[in-house]
Amino acid sequence: MAPNTYGSSLPPIPSTDLDPGLPHTHHASLDSDSDCPFCHISSVFPAYNPADPPAPTSSVINPDLTSPQPATFIILSTPHLVAFLDIMPLSLGHILLCPRPHRPKLTDASPAESAELGRYLRILSAAVVRATGVGDWNVVQNNGAAAAQVVPHMHFHVIPRPELRDKRSERFTATMFGRGQRDELDEEEAGELAERVRRAVAEVVRADEWEMESKL
Amino acid sequence: MAPNTYGSSLPPIPSTDLDPGLPHTHHASLDSDSDCPFCHISSVFPAYNPADPPAPTSSVINPDLTSPQPATFIILSTPHLVAFLDIMPLSLGHILLCPRPHRPKLTDASPAESAELGRYLRILSAAVVRATGVGDWNVVQNNGAAAAQVVPHMHFHVIPRPELRDKRSERFTATMFGRGQRDELDEEEAGELAERVRRAVAEVVRADEWEMESKL
Repeated sequence: MAPNTYGSSLPPIPSTDLDPGLPHTHHASLDSDSDCPFCHISSVFPAYNPADPPAPTSSVINPDLTSPQPATFIILSTPHLVAFLDIMPLSLGHILLCPRPHRPKLTDASPAESAELGRYLRILSAAVVRATGVGDWNVVQNNGAAAAQVVPHMHFHVIPRPELRDKRSERFTATMFGRGQRDELDEEEAGELAERVRRAVAEVVRADEWEMESKL
Repeated sequence: MAPNTYGSSLPPIPSTDLDPGLPHTHHASLDSDSDCPFCHISSVFPAYNPADPPAPTSSVINPDLTSPQPATFIILSTPHLVAFLDIMPLSLGHILLCPRPHRPKLTDASPAESAELGRYLRILSAAVVRATGVGDWNVVQNNGAAAAQVVPHMHFHVIPRPELRDKRSERFTATMFGRGQRDELDEEEAGELAERVRRAVAEVVRADEWEMESKL
């Protein structure tokens, strides 16, 4: 059985897509699922400007906002996306990025959401490299039970890979797709790491804006 | 050693990025690498309209255009991106998507390229589901040797996952990150599959355009 990091009581989301091969039209009624832990995260953290993130003590990024669910260390919160530390990381800096509305699979995202996911995957990758000092990483996104998706709200994993052949690396291969055990997040370490990554995100976003401006 | 599907003589790409945590400015001189197999693919296949792909017999998508390198079954060829069948697929419909210019890692892509990658990841995912009838799939993108990147031109894998616990699935876990053996692509099967996926891409793109138009 794949470990369900949010408890095993999570019910499967019924498919509302008659033709799973064609992205479906979006209905407001499907934009949130009361049983979905990532919808819960989306609902409690307001959007902020990623180029100017709140201070670590700000109430708008208080990790306990998701209580009684596990503490959530926010990395990014825009009108369309949220990113946060995985609560059972495969390595230090393991981050999840998802659309704010409830989208079970990547094909359920809107065209605009999928472009935004791509844009921020690069920004988050650069930020995680800066914040951890680890220059190699994997990006993984699982769709459906056969692909080892656990939380049925689509998300990209960004996972730093410090070395190729240590025990953690062996475990990575075994756990990424649903077997084996992960570490639990240390909350003090997590708070400091999240702050470093948020500041790195701001640096990358501001550098992009500056590069765009210099081209005008 | 990770299997190098394009021969073991591929030299490592020297890093041109002084600060790997910040995306670097793009120079035309870095946009192509003469030793890179994916740059070779980019250079021989012209862009076409994904909503109206060429006939399977068209010379512009002739798999042998990459000769003497392995035959390449094109799925998508836009001004900014190319996608094609993996020559050693982990499952039927295993596709690679990459920027047309040479970008070693995701952080080397431009902001616009990364958004375009996100947009087409969703379109290709929907198309592969339609073309294969397999509704579950993984999206994987590896950056650097420690993350099991083999070809140093960044690419997303889109990998259908027909079942959770067959032999292929066990092998998947072992091979995705660099160990074990993959099948070689059957060229006749590949030609038919690529045609099905190109047509499914066209259907998804036209459905998106229609949905956008109906909202005007």
